[in-house]
Amino acid sequence: MVNIAVLGCGRIGVMHARNIANHPRARLATVFDIHQPSADKIAAELGVKTSKSIEEVLASPDVDAILIATSTNTHADILEMAVAAGKPILCEKPIDLSLDRVNACYAKVRDKNVPIMLGFVRRFDPGHRATRDAVRRGDIGDLHQVMITSRDPGMAPAAYLKVSGGIFRDMTIHDFDMARFMLGEEVAQVYATGSRLVDPALMNELQDYDTVCVTLTTASGKQCVINNSRQAAYGYDQRVEALGTLGMASSQNRKNHEATLSTRTFTERSEPYLNFFIERYTEAFAAEVSEFVDAIENKREPEVGFADGRLALMLAEAALKSVQTGRVVNMSEMG
Amino acid sequence: MVNIAVLGCGRIGVMHARNIANHPRARLATVFDIHQPSADKIAAELGVKTSKSIEEVLASPDVDAILIATSTNTHADILEMAVAAGKPILCEKPIDLSLDRVNACYAKVRDKNVPIMLGFVRRFDPGHRATRDAVRRGDIGDLHQVMITSRDPGMAPAAYLKVSGGIFRDMTIHDFDMARFMLGEEVAQVYATGSRLVDPALMNELQDYDTVCVTLTTASGKQCVINNSRQAAYGYDQRVEALGTLGMASSQNRKNHEATLSTRTFTERSEPYLNFFIERYTEAFAAEVSEFVDAIENKREPEVGFADGRLALMLAEAALKSVQTGRVVNMSEMG
Amino acid sequence: MVNIAVLGCGRIGVMHARNIANHPRARLATVFDIHQPSADKIAAELGVKTSKSIEEVLASPDVDAILIATSTNTHADILEMAVAAGKPILCEKPIDLSLDRVNACYAKVRDKNVPIMLGFVRRFDPGHRATRDAVRRGDIGDLHQVMITSRDPGMAPAAYLKVSGGIFRDMTIHDFDMARFMLGEEVAQVYATGSRLVDPALMNELQDYDTVCVTLTTASGKQCVINNSRQAAYGYDQRVEALGTLGMASSQNRKNHEATLSTRTFTERSEPYLNFFIERYTEAFAAEVSEFVDAIENKREPEVGFADGRLALMLAEAALKSVQTGRVVNMSEMG
Amino acid sequence: MVNIAVLGCGRIGVMHARNIANHPRARLATVFDIHQPSADKIAAELGVKTSKSIEEVLASPDVDAILIATSTNTHADILEMAVAAGKPILCEKPIDLSLDRVNACYAKVRDKNVPIMLGFVRRFDPGHRATRDAVRRGDIGDLHQVMITSRDPGMAPAAYLKVSGGIFRDMTIHDFDMARFMLGEEVAQVYATGSRLVDPALMNELQDYDTVCVTLTTASGKQCVINNSRQAAYGYDQRVEALGTLGMASSQNRKNHEATLSTRTFTERSEPYLNFFIERYTEAFAAEVSEFVDAIENKREPEVGFADGRLALMLAEAALKSVQTGRVVNMSEMG
Repeated sequence: MVNIAVLGCGRIGVMHARNIANHPRARLATVFDIHQPSADKIAAELGVKTSKSIEEVLASPDVDAILIATSTNTHADILEMAVAAGKPILCEKPIDLSLDRVNACYAKVRDKNVPIMLGFVRRFDPGHRATRDAVRRGDIGDLHQVMITSRDPGMAPAAYLKVSGGIFRDMTIHDFDMARFMLGEEVAQVYATGSRLVDPALMNELQDYDTVCVTLTTASGKQCVINNSRQAAYGYDQRVEALGTLGMASSQNRKNHEATLSTRTFTERSEPYLNFFIERYTEAFAAEVSEFVDAIENKREPEVGFADGRLALMLAEAALKSVQTGRVVNMSEMG
Repeated sequence: MVNIAVLGCGRIGVMHARNIANHPRARLATVFDIHQPSADKIAAELGVKTSKSIEEVLASPDVDAILIATSTNTHADILEMAVAAGKPILCEKPIDLSLDRVNACYAKVRDKNVPIMLGFVRRFDPGHRATRDAVRRGDIGDLHQVMITSRDPGMAPAAYLKVSGGIFRDMTIHDFDMARFMLGEEVAQVYATGSRLVDPALMNELQDYDTVCVTLTTASGKQCVINNSRQAAYGYDQRVEALGTLGMASSQNRKNHEATLSTRTFTERSEPYLNFFIERYTEAFAAEVSEFVDAIENKREPEVGFADGRLALMLAEAALKSVQTGRVVNMSEMG
Repeated sequence: MVNIAVLGCGRIGVMHARNIANHPRARLATVFDIHQPSADKIAAELGVKTSKSIEEVLASPDVDAILIATSTNTHADILEMAVAAGKPILCEKPIDLSLDRVNACYAKVRDKNVPIMLGFVRRFDPGHRATRDAVRRGDIGDLHQVMITSRDPGMAPAAYLKVSGGIFRDMTIHDFDMARFMLGEEVAQVYATGSRLVDPALMNELQDYDTVCVTLTTASGKQCVINNSRQAAYGYDQRVEALGTLGMASSQNRKNHEATLSTRTFTERSEPYLNFFIERYTEAFAAEVSEFVDAIENKREPEVGFADGRLALMLAEAALKSVQTGRVVNMSEMG
Repeated sequence: MVNIAVLGCGRIGVMHARNIANHPRARLATVFDIHQPSADKIAAELGVKTSKSIEEVLASPDVDAILIATSTNTHADILEMAVAAGKPILCEKPIDLSLDRVNACYAKVRDKNVPIMLGFVRRFDPGHRATRDAVRRGDIGDLHQVMITSRDPGMAPAAYLKVSGGIFRDMTIHDFDMARFMLGEEVAQVYATGSRLVDPALMNELQDYDTVCVTLTTASGKQCVINNSRQAAYGYDQRVEALGTLGMASSQNRKNHEATLSTRTFTERSEPYLNFFIERYTEAFAAEVSEFVDAIENKREPEVGFADGRLALMLAEAALKSVQTGRVVNMSEMG
């Protein structure tokens, strides 16, 4: 039984707390939130006690590991504190919006023998994983191309977007990790194009983009294209497709159910897709916690770690640089 | 090169004439219709001559074989004439609406060594045939159940329905043949239920049914269910499904194209199905002519013959008897 | 908060206990099983106390309602005891294998103002329910035909089958309820055909059937066909389809995920279907408990009650009579 | 009736000749091929006469229009001759592999009032066209992104590839036209990445690519990504997808039939896709001829003309330049 504390009781923290509470080999040790009523509410629901501070959580002998779901700007600090306390960490993405800060943090936490897992939840989606497994198993032969479609159902609130770090660091970062997950080889070159089509006024104000396409190329010539939009009216669109010498493996969208309607003017009409990430990746979030628990129990590194978080952020930086300069960026430029 | 004459230049005859004209190893020898302008029109289009009578067609040394697409009540007579003339025949279903007439005809034409093929076109549909082939090949192991869905897009005109012989002889007859095609074993028992739901007034007047379900059972216990409706608002619905010990093979509907639309309120909406039989079974009608030509060239029996037409009609009679008596009918009762 | 006791801690009882424990407005009050270690195990997992007897459960002021998941032959007795104790009941199907016992029980429990809900879980499946809702809303106009496909992935153990009451009372009973759920009108006539194809030796020994087709007809002529097999190699096959004057609504199978593979010899190959009912109907089982809790909270009758359980059993009896006599059975014969 | 001559009786010319012969308002006037036996064969099949030279064809009063399906290096010369002769032209793509030659030809043939249609057949595919129509009709609101997947089933022969002009001019050129067809706005920037993964040795020898991704951006920020591979083991993969403010329209692959198989280890397995362009675009090739005939009859410009062929070639040149220089190319650079 692994006793896990949840830091941050917003929407995602609450979901993780429930998943931990439901996990057969994990126990929710305590919850903490800077806004105490948020912590109180989920604590009451799940019958656990709250903690008054992160220090209290990390000092508790009842806490074996922590899950960081606080606001992004606190992730790196808490990571460093938890590593110092020797507590394994499952940290929501991103580690930080600043690559410098991430690098500084990395210097402090690496080689400390404390397992750090990054919350790239899509790796744990059964469909995406089955596709990756098909690739690794050789079902499609040698991999040539990866196509990732990733579109949010609608624009996040302006307040959120302002502190999000921009679309590449906030949204595409999941797809950069998915690209690395599928490619099995590091990216050498990045080209990105960014447009302001969904909400041009807001995007102009924030100097951000709402519609982007990113092309990634590896040294051996494997290609990956990511397309993102902040608004897919028909719902959260999450697809991955891999082409190889022997065939194609793909992971398609999921719906609430498989009911369809056919009438005089159309056939086989389905309902909108699962919407939004908490619904679409329900099983993935549970599997992510499971991987974390399993890694702790077996004293091994989790499948996706700090270095993966850092590399995804570097790809985001490269994409941003590409859009801003209008040229292809070599990853070797990124340091 | 097989020289084929088409008798009857209605909608179906015209389609057959074009298929023959386009066939690489067939030639359209002549066309005939009791209504001369109908024959003239297609003759002009395809650059062939018309004939003045069936007798003239059958006497012509330029005619190797005939295709009967005249009105149902003439089929048996023409069949007998053509057999007497030694010309192979492809006859549109049904042979006749009266089983007695069919039996009398059978007595005259069997054992005369003249190939007779019945136009059960659905056997030649690529999807249905692939399903039958999967069954025969053993892909699904031993066959247990066959489900046939067969629904017209809308009611035929009342004038047509009045002389159609009723739903079982006119519409279900195709499904009875499909059932035999899939089952690979004769039917022992028939149960049918018939309702008047689409046009109750007309069905009452004609003492016919527009919505029927028929259950067929073989001696070994294989089951087949056919469901028919004279009206499927969403288009011509043609599906076949076979369950066996090792799995399921099925043939689903086809559309004009694979374009779909997804919006705020629905996803993956397709257009209506191919509509109606001339569109849905385009490839099947061409393949049917091909089988006829091939059988003649190779001096062998066509794949589906007079006996198949007679057995399908017997199943139709049994289904009608079942509805009328409200009981299960043993095929042994049907003589 | 509704305090619910679970009676019977087999596979299904354990699943219900977990769903109750996870329900936001329900509390698992206690668990009981005649085999004490089964109760102990789930009690420990969920942190609740066990009870020593049904009497103790029913006498407890901490218990607001009970869920009956004991063996079938105890259902009616416990129902009567719980009604006498004034505790609302969610009872797994069937009430009893004997229609006489069900009728006797009904006489005792009806008009006692104690809510009784029957566990026809498929009514709560999101896809099936969306299809029913489309029908009720008029999306397909007037209903004409309902097709239900319901096949288990494989034969249950012989020991289970011996006490199951036969395929109609054990398996088809769910489909009889689904038929009533979809039709919105009572069945007037039943015709069933039963075969012994999956395991002929065992079926002969038990005088049972493993492959059945049932045709139901209502007084107004609506038709419903159910097909069942005890063995679908490709997984648990659960589909419902409704045809009406304006179109067709259908609920198709669900998979673990939407990953597909395409290679030189095939395209779009998916993995097997969700398998078995606990996986396929996960959301439905949770929604069923929710309906029970909601009905208690709002002091109203649950959506599916004792009368529904009794009518489904009457249809099972009628189907069995039809197979045994080889004739159509009028529901008026069933008393 | 429009009398059309076919120049070039290779595989594509023969297909066009048959389509013209089958067209209700067109007549195949004559055929010509530099290799006389090729012309003789199709002339015999379709019952037309051959011509001895292009000059003879163009001089014939029986020829209203010509279809150019000769080898690419002759297209521009024949175009100029035909325009001089005042005969409307349907010309297979590309006009020429050299943009200079295309420009020179353009100077001679434009403003001569002779209709010229380019054979960008995919515009006439029912699924792709339905998608474009959905976009134009506003079904998906304002267009933001277009994704084009276009993969050949297997490498063309080395001899063909050597004279093909490279993947962008030979294969992607169809997708460049599709991009313009969908976008409804000219491309401003092109970025392409090219790899040698399918047959590295041959691609190195030819200095060509077999796996490419191209990103196109318009002045208003609309994005289009094309992915190409010379080898999709599972068949000819032809898909188009358009995202807009209100939803997504897409055109998916087509199969020979809709038969599927489900067994213990997989479900809903389909057969490979229609393969190759003559099969996949059967309806489109017929519709292309129809558009040509219709334009001539109505004395209007065909839907896709010389300028479209030239612009697609310019995009191909830009993509090649992008791969060769490793940078983004502005279309303003292309002259």
